[in-house]
Parts: sequence; structure tokens; C-alpha cells
Amino acid sequence: MTIKIFGHKAPDTDATCSALIWEWYLREVQGKEARACVQDPPNSEARFVLERWGVGMPETLGPLQPGDEVVIVDTNNPAELPDNINEAEIAEVIDHHLLAGGLKTRAPIKMTLRPVAATATVMHWLIGRDMDRAPDAIRGLMLSCILSDTLEFRSPTTTPTDRKVAESLAAALKIDIPAYAAEMFAAKSDVSAFSDAELLTMDSKLFEIDGHRLRVSVLETTAPAVVLERKAGLMAAMGEVAARDGAERVLLFIVDILNEEATLLVPDEMVRTIAEKSFGIPASGDTVVLPGVMSRKKQIIPNLRV
Amino acid sequence: MTIKIFGHKAPDTDATCSALIWEWYLREVQGKEARACVQDPPNSEARFVLERWGVGMPETLGPLQPGDEVVIVDTNNPAELPDNINEAEIAEVIDHHLLAGGLKTRAPIKMTLRPVAATATVMHWLIGRDMDRAPDAIRGLMLSCILSDTLEFRSPTTTPTDRKVAESLAAALKIDIPAYAAEMFAAKSDVSAFSDAELLTMDSKLFEIDGHRLRVSVLETTAPAVVLERKAGLMAAMGEVAARDGAERVLLFIVDILNEEATLLVPDEMVRTIAEKSFGIPASGDTVVLPGVMSRKKQIIPNLRV
Repeated sequence: MTIKIFGHKAPDTDATCSALIWEWYLREVQGKEARACVQDPPNSEARFVLERWGVGMPETLGPLQPGDEVVIVDTNNPAELPDNINEAEIAEVIDHHLLAGGLKTRAPIKMTLRPVAATATVMHWLIGRDMDRAPDAIRGLMLSCILSDTLEFRSPTTTPTDRKVAESLAAALKIDIPAYAAEMFAAKSDVSAFSDAELLTMDSKLFEIDGHRLRVSVLETTAPAVVLERKAGLMAAMGEVAARDGAERVLLFIVDILNEEATLLVPDEMVRTIAEKSFGIPASGDTVVLPGVMSRKKQIIPNLRV
Repeated sequence: MTIKIFGHKAPDTDATCSALIWEWYLREVQGKEARACVQDPPNSEARFVLERWGVGMPETLGPLQPGDEVVIVDTNNPAELPDNINEAEIAEVIDHHLLAGGLKTRAPIKMTLRPVAATATVMHWLIGRDMDRAPDAIRGLMLSCILSDTLEFRSPTTTPTDRKVAESLAAALKIDIPAYAAEMFAAKSDVSAFSDAELLTMDSKLFEIDGHRLRVSVLETTAPAVVLERKAGLMAAMGEVAARDGAERVLLFIVDILNEEATLLVPDEMVRTIAEKSFGIPASGDTVVLPGVMSRKKQIIPNLRV
């Protein structure tokens, strides 16, 4: 039976490409039948990366059948996985997020979590010397995952290991990191094809904060002005997007990659209070700028207070 | 702050000694402050191993304070850990059991689960070349963990990796595996100092099977007759032991290490039905012999039906 490898819902570059990296490793190094999948269409940066390295789009994961053998990458959170994930045979989990709890298996498994910026960095270590056998496309996907998740080493999630791995891959591929990262971020910043509701859920996770269910969304961009022009539409779409999952509010952080700051949209008094309590910055208008804030994992979630 | 390293309640050789192995690694290789602990007094085999290798008994883990930095070894199941484990700062988990779910962290962590027979085997791989720096005592503890958890390679949980690691350690230490394992198992088989209730909980885990809460206890021994002589007392103690944790029954499997079979005590009709449904063997008397059954993880739990 073919092993299905997939990451979280609303796949970004690391979720999409680390599934493909592991497909290569299982097939070509371990000689197993394995296939990378995505739960939803990947974001525009991930699509740019696949095209740049000549790698086909992973197929969409259909409904999981009980007993399907799966490898989960770039998440360990059941909320970001198919509903019946615990009925599958989870063979392996490779991730770099906090331990969410809730994922269960009936048999011992392989699970590798490491506090680094990208799942691809964990895989680079797991693959070890077999990296010698990796084609350029696989190295290119790995490099892209790390540049994406570290925002070209700007994010505070970046570890020395992430940087070292990315730099060695770039050297082997003769890739100029600043130029390539700029292309990736331009692709990510082109949000013209997406509706307001789509922008609110593109890179978005549900959290329970002080007893309140919130959707915490991030838009990483080199062109924040383009997003901010759509402010009114985005705020108008928030109510319906929040209601879908029973969340009280959508918090949209527009992360300016180049200027290393985030702008939070402030549609109402509740979000205004959250902004002040969480970041100590009074919000007078309908946006608040948070200097230095780039990482949901390291800077937004740990500070959120309702 | 000193990192506390500990395994599951009712510690056996792997839980006790893998905490000590990791203490060595964190202190001597990584230069961190770390201390191995046990939640309860280790079993008689683990105490023999500590004495044999001249390693002091780990101190008993006191109440965890919120914010204590901890490393969890040989379990990932909150039921086998201090009640307030999720308030601690879990820095790392190293284990070889199924993913129990329920353990949660607020930040990304290191977590390494591998489907091998012993936690020490996972550690041997994680330590890698730094094993060159390990003193004989640490190698001896590792070897002991693997021989204990594999029942000298007899248990179906044994993987080629476990065997290879154990054999290389034994060769380096000039240890004769059969002779040393016999000493370990003799120590484990000396149960004279324990009350019937203690025997029932010495190597015991709670499981929810078909909606019934059961305590599944194992006694690995080279002298099953010694235990079976105490059959009446053991069965008499079952009711009170089960009631302590709200379990319906205690299933006691006396594993005959040398003859590779288990004897299940059958105190009443419910256990008789469980024996027949689970293993297809009709139980007419107050015991039933299960040929080839040695592993709770691989052979007992997956087959249990109520």
C-alpha cells in the first residue's frame, strides 16, 4: 500500500515541499511506495517554488480510509489534519511545532520534533549522508522551505542550524539567497487572485486564548500596502470567516517581511483590547503597527491576552 | 536550573537507566546541569543493574513545580507521569512506545520516538559518535536496558537494531550476554520481598479496552512456579488493587522468560471471557497458558477484547 505523506491544511511552502522531500527519501533511499499529497491547494509561494524547481504539484489528499498508512509532516495538531486521522496508521511524524496533544497511535511510531524553523531542516538531519543522493530539485525544495519559514533568516524562529543548512544548500546549487528569496516573497505577496475571505484563511490557525477561540491569521508580504488597500473588504469578511469555525474573532497580522514589523487589523473594541493587552501598544485607529513582530509561533501566540 | 530527567511510574530497568544515560549525555557531552530521577523505587532488576555497574540510585522526584525544566524518557503517556506534567517546561521526550496523546507543550520541543525495543536503543542512536566518550558504566546501563526490554532478544519487540547495539556494547565491555542476562532475570525473579498487591502493580499499566478500564500487569520471571505458588493471595488482592484506580479487573500475566509463554490468572468469569475472546484459548481452571506470549505492547494489548 502506498504511504501518503502530507502536511497541515492550507499548505505553505514547508508543508507542501517537505512532503515532497520525504516522498523522495522514502522512494529513492528507502525503496518504499510513497506519495506526497496536499490537503488544500498550496499557497502562491509554494506554487512558485514547485515551478522553479520543475516539481509537479502533489495530488490532493482524498478522504482517508481507516488503515491507510500515513506520514505527517510540518504539524502534529489534529485540528490541522483530516478528521479521522487517528483511524489511520500513522507511521511517522516529522515536525517543528509545539506538541499539540491529541494525536494518538495504536502502535509505536517514529516521531521526530525539533525546535528549528522548518520541517525541511529536521529532514536534512534525518536524511544525513543520503543527502549526497538528493537531486538538485530536492535540495532546492529544502532551501525554499527554510527561506520561507525563516523569512530569509529574519524570523526569530531561525536557529544557527537552519541558516547553516540553507547556506550549504544554496552554495551547492549556486543560488544567490537574497535574489532567490526576493522572488519567493514576491510570489507570496501576489495576492490579487484571492478573495478577502481566502486571504483571511490562507495562513491561519485556531487557538484557544484565555478561554476565547480565535483565528490567528498571518499574511507575510513584501508589499503590505497592497493588502492594506483591501482593509475594508478584509474587515467586512471577518465575521463570516470567524463564524465558520465558531471563533469569536479573526486576528489578521500583515507581516512586512522587509521592514520586519506586523500590522494588526483592528475592526472593533475587542480586537483593540487584545492589541493593547497583548502588545502594550494603544490602538487608536483601525490598524496597529507592531515593530519587530514576524513570528506567530514565537511572538504572537505567546503574548496573546484577551 | 537543573533539568530533571525521569521515566514512567513503577520504573523498570529501561525507565531507570535511560534517565541515567541521558543525565550523562546532558552533563558530560552537552555541558548542562541535569539530574536523573525516579518517580518510585525501581524494581529489583533495575537495582541489581545499578549495583553491578556501580551507579548510585537516582533520587526520587519530588513534586514538580510549574516551570521546572524536564526531560521525559521511556513514556509519553501523561497517566504514567506526574499529574501536573503539562505545567512543566518539557524540553525533550525520548521514548519507544505508542503515541498516547495528552502530552502538550507551549513551545516547540525535541521529541524522538522510535519503534525499537528499548529507550536506550534510541539514545544510542541520538548520542552517535559521542558514544566514544561513554564510560563503561553508561555502556553497561544501555546493554542492561536492551536485554531487559527484549528479554534477551526473545520478545517480539526486538528489532535488528536493538540486537546489534546490545551485541556491540557487550563486545566492548567483554560481557557474556547469556550469563549476564541470566543474572538480571534472576534479580527480577526474586519477588520474595514484595506483597501480593505490590506484585500486581510492579509492572502494570491502565488501559481502556472496549469501554472497560483494566489494569494490565506483567511479571517477567525465570521462576514462574514461585509466583504461581502465591496464586490465591494474588487473586485475593486483585479487587482492592483494581478499585484503587477505578479499574474493573487486574489482568496478571506471568511471563516465563525461558519457556517463552505467559500464564494469565483467571479469578472469575469476566477474566475467563476476556481470555477466550482475546486469545482464543478456553480457560477451564484458574489459570490459562498462552504459548509464545511475552510482550504486553505487541501481543497482549493489541489482542485484548472484553
